[in-house]
Amino acid sequence: MSNQVAIIGGSMTKFGERDAWVRELLAEAGEACLDDAGVTPDDVEHVYVSNMASGEFEGQTGIMNALAHDLGLMPAYSQRIDQTSSSGAAGIYGAWQSVASGASDMTLLVGGEKMTHKDTAGSTEVIASITHPEEYKHGVTLPSFAGMTARLYLDKYDAPRESLAKVAIKNHKNGVDNPKAQFQKEIDIETAMESPIIADPLRLYDFCPVTDGSAALMFCPVDVAEEYADDYVVVSGVGGATDTHVVHERDDPTTMGGVVESGQEAYEMAGLGPDDIDVAELHDMFTILEFLQMEGLDFADEGEAWKHIEDGRTEKDGELPINTSGGLKSKGHPLGASGVAQGYEIYEQLMGEAGPRQVDADTGLACNVGGFGNCVITTIMEAN
Amino acid sequence: MSNQVAIIGGSMTKFGERDAWVRELLAEAGEACLDDAGVTPDDVEHVYVSNMASGEFEGQTGIMNALAHDLGLMPAYSQRIDQTSSSGAAGIYGAWQSVASGASDMTLLVGGEKMTHKDTAGSTEVIASITHPEEYKHGVTLPSFAGMTARLYLDKYDAPRESLAKVAIKNHKNGVDNPKAQFQKEIDIETAMESPIIADPLRLYDFCPVTDGSAALMFCPVDVAEEYADDYVVVSGVGGATDTHVVHERDDPTTMGGVVESGQEAYEMAGLGPDDIDVAELHDMFTILEFLQMEGLDFADEGEAWKHIEDGRTEKDGELPINTSGGLKSKGHPLGASGVAQGYEIYEQLMGEAGPRQVDADTGLACNVGGFGNCVITTIMEAN
Repeated sequence: MSNQVAIIGGSMTKFGERDAWVRELLAEAGEACLDDAGVTPDDVEHVYVSNMASGEFEGQTGIMNALAHDLGLMPAYSQRIDQTSSSGAAGIYGAWQSVASGASDMTLLVGGEKMTHKDTAGSTEVIASITHPEEYKHGVTLPSFAGMTARLYLDKYDAPRESLAKVAIKNHKNGVDNPKAQFQKEIDIETAMESPIIADPLRLYDFCPVTDGSAALMFCPVDVAEEYADDYVVVSGVGGATDTHVVHERDDPTTMGGVVESGQEAYEMAGLGPDDIDVAELHDMFTILEFLQMEGLDFADEGEAWKHIEDGRTEKDGELPINTSGGLKSKGHPLGASGVAQGYEIYEQLMGEAGPRQVDADTGLACNVGGFGNCVITTIMEAN
Repeated sequence: MSNQVAIIGGSMTKFGERDAWVRELLAEAGEACLDDAGVTPDDVEHVYVSNMASGEFEGQTGIMNALAHDLGLMPAYSQRIDQTSSSGAAGIYGAWQSVASGASDMTLLVGGEKMTHKDTAGSTEVIASITHPEEYKHGVTLPSFAGMTARLYLDKYDAPRESLAKVAIKNHKNGVDNPKAQFQKEIDIETAMESPIIADPLRLYDFCPVTDGSAALMFCPVDVAEEYADDYVVVSGVGGATDTHVVHERDDPTTMGGVVESGQEAYEMAGLGPDDIDVAELHDMFTILEFLQMEGLDFADEGEAWKHIEDGRTEKDGELPINTSGGLKSKGHPLGASGVAQGYEIYEQLMGEAGPRQVDADTGLACNVGGFGNCVITTIMEAN
């Protein structure tokens, strides 16, 4: 029987264009997380860094050792965890394992990425290196997959194009209340529907931006958490699963196998189902992904997720608020940070510390998608 | 109480210059490990890839997803673990955590790196990106640290320069019996002592080569191991620790704090001490490191490790054989693979499958050094 794992603190930096290297961003979030958790550097036993590509973006590696140094955590064990765009949740899974296994009684997880100093082509090249070389050589990048999948979804389920725009509108609206979000501005349907085409039928406002930022969470066994705080959050379910690395080999690209499998694992471990979830952060790197995750996680029947954006169920005041943080869409998507920041938003909501974004929630879920669903991690958290 | 963790299979590819990309090398070792363990792809629940820099070396990321795909392991969860030159042992620690925590009942770990297609300057640039930028800008790379540390050690302990050469000679001699080693040739003291100076007093034969290769191990709970095999190996101790990221901040560079701390953790967890170890694989990226690890792990008193190479104690037929595999020195050092390959040698020795390299051993230890001791992982294994 493994340890029950708690989260006793969290933080995130301002997301956006930051005049700081990833090392500085990691230190900023890490320091704030130590403060928030009331944990001293000496008490940290493991420090995990979620980061996809500091070497490719900045020519700097070894950033997990640098972080241990910068925060005075030595001799805490450090490692970097990479699961492409889901590196953040892979870090949550790794930190959970470190505590659940008894290897560490206090694990600091910091996710971060510095991207905006590259131009869009430069960032796209790093991100496209995720994909299968046989697909990539045909020019198929993640936005292309998103466009083709969106077209298929809209056709197959007779969904209006506007429903995708409404995902962006909702998440931008939520982002207005998140001072850490890259964008704090509402957009209207005309702006979304008339923005430049990127990968038909998807337009500029269907895509998350390129972002710098970092986020952190502090993990420990529940019995240790009791020494630090009356209120904390328990990681009650976590699961991860791969799908084909070659996207065109999937029977039905509108079903993300990794979402389905990781969700089932997390639900089973937590002993909960989709109806028990009060708030969720989904990986809206592209608007269409919010629908695919809603369906894969059984928040909506197949082909019906788009109806819930139309009827307001996923709005902040709806029955199942999704992406109260603003999502990747308006909060931004610094690759290694995003999954940690999703976890931080759920943590804040369950702790009642989400300020103007606060919803009524005891149980939350985060879903972080790597590649184009090549690997997905789902996490369920509950207030203690 | 966490699960007791067993290793039920292992493999490594031929190390050296390989006409294959890291993705192919990972698949080669992974496939061989499945065969060796008698495990079918469906039974694998987690797949961890130890790799430092496939993006920097090959412009290809997402290799953990590619491996899950190539071996037909979907929907097994995948992630990449990086701890620079100790990525391999970080993978062992990660795989141990995945099984000990109950997250996975069957974890395939594959470490690999493809390096030789870069020239020496290109490889050095990738590796040097590990170091602190404030040190790196002065031209201090890992070989420079090794040279300065070797000089300090020789002066401080009045050790003969030849003792370092004898580490290389021993490990080359052991490598002759390892068909997977990059070099299978003995060297004599003149060759070592008269080879070109790289970082005074260290010469060419004090350094490991640049290498392509991959190695794999299969982890599961002990009760699951019983279903697969009568004989297996138990990971009875594992510990990891950081030291300063800035090497010049260390009080005494001839003591590697990460070695000492990770060793103590591993010994404590296993309930064993240095006298209980029958065979060890140490991280001889530079000959001087074998001495520093022997002392840090209490195989020798401070300043006396060099005497044991002189008196033959660490030879294959000595009291404590070190680097029976040939070590990084003659086996080669494909960064992400090396720690896994160290574990594989210990596994082979404890299983009695080391052929002409076989020594009498029930308990073994591996020590994998990241950076210049910036993070170190020590693992202890025992025959069941």
